Amino acid sequence: MNALDLNTVVLADNKKEMIILDQTLLPGRVEYLRLSGAKEIWDAIYLLRVRGAPAIGIAAAYGVYILASQLETEDMRAFREHFRKQKAYLAASRPTAVNLFWALNRMEKVLEENAGGLTVARMKERLREEADAIRAEDIAISRNIGQYGFELLKHGCGILTHCNAGTLATGKYGTALAPVYIALERGWHDLRVYCGETRPLLQGARLSAFEMQTAGVDTTLLCDNMAAAAMKRGLIDIVFVGCDRVAANGDFANKIGTSGVAIIARHYGVPFYVCAPSSTIDMSLKSGGEIVIEERPAEEVTEMWYKERMAPAGVKVMNPAFDVTENGLITGIITEKGIVRPPFDRAFIEMGL
Amino acid sequence: MNALDLNTVVLADNKKEMIILDQTLLPGRVEYLRLSGAKEIWDAIYLLRVRGAPAIGIAAAYGVYILASQLETEDMRAFREHFRKQKAYLAASRPTAVNLFWALNRMEKVLEENAGGLTVARMKERLREEADAIRAEDIAISRNIGQYGFELLKHGCGILTHCNAGTLATGKYGTALAPVYIALERGWHDLRVYCGETRPLLQGARLSAFEMQTAGVDTTLLCDNMAAAAMKRGLIDIVFVGCDRVAANGDFANKIGTSGVAIIARHYGVPFYVCAPSSTIDMSLKSGGEIVIEERPAEEVTEMWYKERMAPAGVKVMNPAFDVTENGLITGIITEKGIVRPPFDRAFIEMGL
Repeated sequence: MNALDLNTVVLADNKKEMIILDQTLLPGRVEYLRLSGAKEIWDAIYLLRVRGAPAIGIAAAYGVYILASQLETEDMRAFREHFRKQKAYLAASRPTAVNLFWALNRMEKVLEENAGGLTVARMKERLREEADAIRAEDIAISRNIGQYGFELLKHGCGILTHCNAGTLATGKYGTALAPVYIALERGWHDLRVYCGETRPLLQGARLSAFEMQTAGVDTTLLCDNMAAAAMKRGLIDIVFVGCDRVAANGDFANKIGTSGVAIIARHYGVPFYVCAPSSTIDMSLKSGGEIVIEERPAEEVTEMWYKERMAPAGVKVMNPAFDVTENGLITGIITEKGIVRPPFDRAFIEMGL
Repeated sequence: MNALDLNTVVLADNKKEMIILDQTLLPGRVEYLRLSGAKEIWDAIYLLRVRGAPAIGIAAAYGVYILASQLETEDMRAFREHFRKQKAYLAASRPTAVNLFWALNRMEKVLEENAGGLTVARMKERLREEADAIRAEDIAISRNIGQYGFELLKHGCGILTHCNAGTLATGKYGTALAPVYIALERGWHDLRVYCGETRPLLQGARLSAFEMQTAGVDTTLLCDNMAAAAMKRGLIDIVFVGCDRVAANGDFANKIGTSGVAIIARHYGVPFYVCAPSSTIDMSLKSGGEIVIEERPAEEVTEMWYKERMAPAGVKVMNPAFDVTENGLITGIITEKGIVRPPFDRAFIEMGL
């Protein structure tokens, strides 16, 4: 199996279902779900069967297209009303996922801007084309990030990543792992990838290690607290991480644990790169301090353990989903338009953001 | 229950058994085992029912006393031969545990130095007294470390620790957590203790969080990768960690993940203290580079998960049991003789080591 053929989210040939890889079963089972019901699409997003910001956006776009198209009508007003209901329903599946709203709003814009001039049948096609475009653009962006990131690699080098920002998180290629896929395409088979397991939900162990191993890459899993030991041994030449949001000064939010890796990389002089579509750079946020961090349930930390609780009942638990890494720790931000280097505030403006 | 009454390892009143708290059942169950058979004592050490360097030393001392005393003889030569067999047997239970050998050798020295002048019956008593002394000295050392460490605390401060160097790891008090017990004795009930869970075996979640909660301390569990986020939020005022071995230049080995915490603490300006009996300072090692790090089985990382493997089959895994923290990251080393500050090489010589 080629990891790039895993196909996180695609529209079925019948155009009436979306097919997603059920990521909650990885790495043990590779199973695809064909989804067309409102509740099952909502659940797929809510239960993290599909996850990763870009992949959620694609799933939401296909989801709202599929659900809206189920209304058999020629009355555009009835269709628009039905569309809005489906959109509102899907928007509630993961209220903190920025890409979910972005994709749903983009779909709605197509509807609003063309409602006057199109039949309902043609509008349904137009919505499908827009969802396809969202997926295609995401793949193109990821591929570009991969090509820029690839230029930083040397034969035989060791890459540390955290969480999963690979093909499973996007339409294809991923962000942080995209440079590795580009390297494979160019016949480089000597890279070493180290995956931090990423407690509490283990996206690094379950997803990144899985997709890198599937791609035939020399893959090593390590607990998050082993990053310093790996760098001290000289195993890591470069760090690539994804990101959820970048502020105007370059501070960025990503999966909890990212900022610790950045601090340790700085200590050992290992270059630390953030791989981010330029759309994740939010110029309305002055600094990372303005990014609100979701706090998740204690049980993720205390109960996902073999047979018994792994911590005393009632103990307080810290479980932030993300942390913010200070701009001073970042060597560069790899976007689809090129690599941005500090000072980031100026560089972003030069990029036209 | 008072956490200091947990009694990690004690000799039973009948002097023929040792009673240990089975730490493999924590935090779910507090169960004690009465041990007198060779295989069951060996297993208790091998299977980590008793763990923590000082506690292993105490268990080994009581173990070799109990097993040696089971030979009913008045012939000292037969007794010595029997003792040596039991000693060799127990020494194989955890071949990398320095304290195991140290305690067994100390017991043997008592035998060798007194074999000429004592009856076997008196020798058995003398061995029991020596094992009792090993435990009592360990408690006194831990208490002293606690008192010196306590002087560094302020009311309401937040303490981060890693792994378990608490009362469960020693005769009583512990090393890294001893200052907290001293604070409690003095009526301080406003300290906050943050326990890094310590993957892969979760000694922080299972043991430190348990004993701190049992002691009535405001305890928060966090995943290892959350240390940076906790420090950035200003929750941590001081870090206390235990240690397995200190080199002559102050580099020290402790549970994997310790060096990452030290690097992050330095980044955020949080004081980082190592709590160590002076006996763990090994002047024969020039630097931490000479400390050999045990590599443990991959399954500890990949399979201790609810129902299914948490990583793809066959993936390579890094699983060093310890890491080495560079002396430059240490604010001070708290020993039973006082707090040592850099430069450590000179300070150790001034201590008479």
